[in-house]
Amino acid sequence: MTHSSDLSLGRRAMALLDALARYSDEPERLTRLYLSPSHRAAAEATRGFMQEAGLTAHIDTLGSVVGRIEGRNPDAPALIIGSHIDTVVDAGRYDGNLGVILGIVIAEALKARGIVPSCPIEVIAFGDEENARFPTNLSTSYALSGRYNPAWLDGEDAAGVTLRDALARFGGDPNGIAALTRNPKRYRGYLEVHIEQGPLLEVENRPIGIVTAINGATRARAFVTGEAGHAGTVPMNMRRDALAAVAEMTLAIERIGAHQPDTVATVGVAQVKPGAINVIPARVDFTLDARSPDDVVRHAMVAEIVRECEAIAARRGVTFHFDPFMDSPATPMDRGLMSAFEAGVSSLGLELRYLPSGAGHDAMAMVELCPVAMLFVRCKGGISHNPAESITVEDADVAARVLLETVRRIVA
Amino acid sequence: MTHSSDLSLGRRAMALLDALARYSDEPERLTRLYLSPSHRAAAEATRGFMQEAGLTAHIDTLGSVVGRIEGRNPDAPALIIGSHIDTVVDAGRYDGNLGVILGIVIAEALKARGIVPSCPIEVIAFGDEENARFPTNLSTSYALSGRYNPAWLDGEDAAGVTLRDALARFGGDPNGIAALTRNPKRYRGYLEVHIEQGPLLEVENRPIGIVTAINGATRARAFVTGEAGHAGTVPMNMRRDALAAVAEMTLAIERIGAHQPDTVATVGVAQVKPGAINVIPARVDFTLDARSPDDVVRHAMVAEIVRECEAIAARRGVTFHFDPFMDSPATPMDRGLMSAFEAGVSSLGLELRYLPSGAGHDAMAMVELCPVAMLFVRCKGGISHNPAESITVEDADVAARVLLETVRRIVA
Repeated sequence: MTHSSDLSLGRRAMALLDALARYSDEPERLTRLYLSPSHRAAAEATRGFMQEAGLTAHIDTLGSVVGRIEGRNPDAPALIIGSHIDTVVDAGRYDGNLGVILGIVIAEALKARGIVPSCPIEVIAFGDEENARFPTNLSTSYALSGRYNPAWLDGEDAAGVTLRDALARFGGDPNGIAALTRNPKRYRGYLEVHIEQGPLLEVENRPIGIVTAINGATRARAFVTGEAGHAGTVPMNMRRDALAAVAEMTLAIERIGAHQPDTVATVGVAQVKPGAINVIPARVDFTLDARSPDDVVRHAMVAEIVRECEAIAARRGVTFHFDPFMDSPATPMDRGLMSAFEAGVSSLGLELRYLPSGAGHDAMAMVELCPVAMLFVRCKGGISHNPAESITVEDADVAARVLLETVRRIVA
Repeated sequence: MTHSSDLSLGRRAMALLDALARYSDEPERLTRLYLSPSHRAAAEATRGFMQEAGLTAHIDTLGSVVGRIEGRNPDAPALIIGSHIDTVVDAGRYDGNLGVILGIVIAEALKARGIVPSCPIEVIAFGDEENARFPTNLSTSYALSGRYNPAWLDGEDAAGVTLRDALARFGGDPNGIAALTRNPKRYRGYLEVHIEQGPLLEVENRPIGIVTAINGATRARAFVTGEAGHAGTVPMNMRRDALAAVAEMTLAIERIGAHQPDTVATVGVAQVKPGAINVIPARVDFTLDARSPDDVVRHAMVAEIVRECEAIAARRGVTFHFDPFMDSPATPMDRGLMSAFEAGVSSLGLELRYLPSGAGHDAMAMVELCPVAMLFVRCKGGISHNPAESITVEDADVAARVLLETVRRIVA
C-alpha cells in the first residue's frame, strides 16, 4: 500500500531534481535551451547521476545522455526509460526532468536490491523536446529511429545561430547522427514518466494515471472578412461585423470541442482589424487548436467546426477561409506496456486511472523505434511551463515505486 | 418636383467642392488638418468663394471662415449655415465641405433671385471638427458660445507642435478667442447639411433625410480575466477561457444594440492575451461604443449590457471589469427648424424621411449658441472618411434646393 513507503525513492528523486534545477542559462530563473552551456552542464551532471547509480553513461553526438545497465541476457531486446532535460524559457523543474531522474532512481533501486534485469535497461535524457530554441520537432528522440531531418541542422535560433553551429560548440557532431540509429529488433519498449501538465489527476485526487494515447492535433488559421463601417452610423441590421461572426464561431468551437470528454478545441489567437473603438471590425484572423486521442474523432470534430463556421459566415454575409497547417496523428500506447504499468499501479494498491495526453512528448518520436507507454504524475494546479510547476515528494515516491514495480515485471 | 431642375445649383456646388478638394497637406490624397498650410489655403479659397457669392467674409482668429449677408432688418437674429472644411487623413471631399459650399451656393442663389433676407445670414466654415490633429473637441464651433477650453491651446499634434504655436503660424491669435463669443440673442438658428456617412438613405433610395438628433454615445473599456492553460491538457469543462467569455459578451452586445432600430452597440477592439495558438486565453480587453438618439434609452441599453456581461462572467468563472470613459449626451434638433426643413423638402415633392445622426457634428457645439437642425445627403455605400466618399450631382442639387427653400421660408 502506498502509505507503507518510507519515501526514500521520492526523496532521492526530488534531491536529484533540485540538483539538476541549478543548471540554467539565466541566473534568476530556469531556462535550459537545447545545446546551450547550461544544457551541457546539466547533461554532464545527469551522466554523473547515472554513473553513481551504476549505469555506464555517455553524452551522444546530439547531446542526449545515454545510460545503460547490461542484462543477464545481453542480446535480449532492451527496455528504454527516458524523457528530456531541456526546458522552455522560465520553466519549472519537473517537465521532462522527472522522467529522466526516475529512470536513474529505479536503476539505482534495482542495483540496491541486487536485481539484475533479464535484458539491458537504458535510461535516456533527450535534449530537444521543447523546441524552444530551434525550429525542430523532437529531433534528439527521432534520431534513434533514423528519422533525423538534416534540414533541422540549418534551423536558426533567435540570435541567428544555426543548430549545426550550436552543436559544434556543444561538442557534438552532425556526422555522427546516422550512427545514433538503433535497430528496432534490439528494443522491447520505451517508458516515459511525465508530469500531467493538466488538472485531471489533481481534481480526482489521484497521484498518477496511465496514458491511453498522446492526442492527435489539428492546427489551423482562419480568416473572416466582413465590412468596416462607422460604429455610429451603420444600423445593426446592415452590418457585416467580422468580430461578431468570430464570436459566434468561437462559441461553436467551444461547444463542438466539448462533445466528448477527451477532446478539446481552443481559439487562442484572435486579431481584430482595424481595431478601433468606433469602427465595425472588417476582419478577424483567429486560430484553432483541436485535439483528440482518436484521429477519426478529431477529423470529424474539425469537419463539424468548419461546417458550422461556414454556416455562420453565410448567414452573416462574411467570408470564412480555413487554412489547416498541422495534422499530427495520435500516438497510441502499447497495450502490453500499459498492462505492465497496470500491474505496477495495482501492486501499490492504487486504483487504475486512464487519461490521454494533451501535450506532446518524446514518446511520439520513440514509437517509431519501439512500443511506448507513459505514466502521468499529478502536478499542482495542472500548471506547467511555469516556475510554479510543482509536485509532492509523496507523488514522486508513488511514481518511482510504480515505475520500479513495472520495470521489475518487464525485466524479470 | 425634383425632375424639373436644371441641376444648376448641384453643378455649382460640385464645381466648388472639386476646387476646394485641391487643397491638401499631401500631394496624392486629401488630408487637410486644422491649422495646416492647406487649411490656410482652403480657408482663403472659401473666403474667395464667399466674396464672389456676394458675402462679406473674413477668416477669424481660430481659422474659421465667416461670411455674411445683411438682412432687411440688420438687428433681427441671424441664421447661420455651416459645417467644417478640415478633414481626416486620406479623406473624401464631401464630409463637412458640402455643408459649407451649399451655404455659399444658396447665398449666391438668393442674390441671383433678387431675394434680400429679412435677417442676416452667416455662412461659416469651421476648421476643427475632425479632431484629427489636436486633442480638442469641436474647438472652433464651441468658441462661438464662449465654451472654448483654454487647455486645448496646450494640446500637441503627433509632431509635438502645440495648438498655440500652430495657431500663431496660421496667423491666428489665442488672445482673440474670447471676442469670438456671440450673443445668443442675435442668432435664430444653425442649419448644417452633411453627408449621411451611413447607408440608410441609399438603401431606401432617398436623396436626403431630416436629422432627428445627434446620437448620444457611451464609450467604455472592458477587461475580462480568466485563466491561461495548456490548450491540449485542460478539459473543456475545467476552463476559464477569457476569449470564449468575451465571444458570448460580444453576441449579447450585438443583440442588445439591436433592440431598437435607431440604437447601435459595437465591439471594435478585442485584444487577446497571451495570444498563442496552444494557450487558453487568460485575458481579453475589449471596447464598447453604444449610441442612441435618446439618452434614457442609451443608459438603459448600457446597463443591460453590463448586467448581461456580469452574468456571463459569473457563469464562466471569469472576472469582468467595466470602465466607461465617455458619456456624450444626445443633441436634439430644434422642432421649429425641423419644420422649416420639412417645408423645404415637401416643396420639392419629396417624401419626408427622418433619421438620427450616428456621428458627431459641429451642430453639437452650436446648440450651445442657438437652435440647430441638420439635413443629411445620401452618400455612396454609406462610405465616409475615405477617398471613395461620393455623392451625385443630382443629390447635391436636391440638397441645395431644399436648403434654399428652407432658408427662404425662415428669412422671408
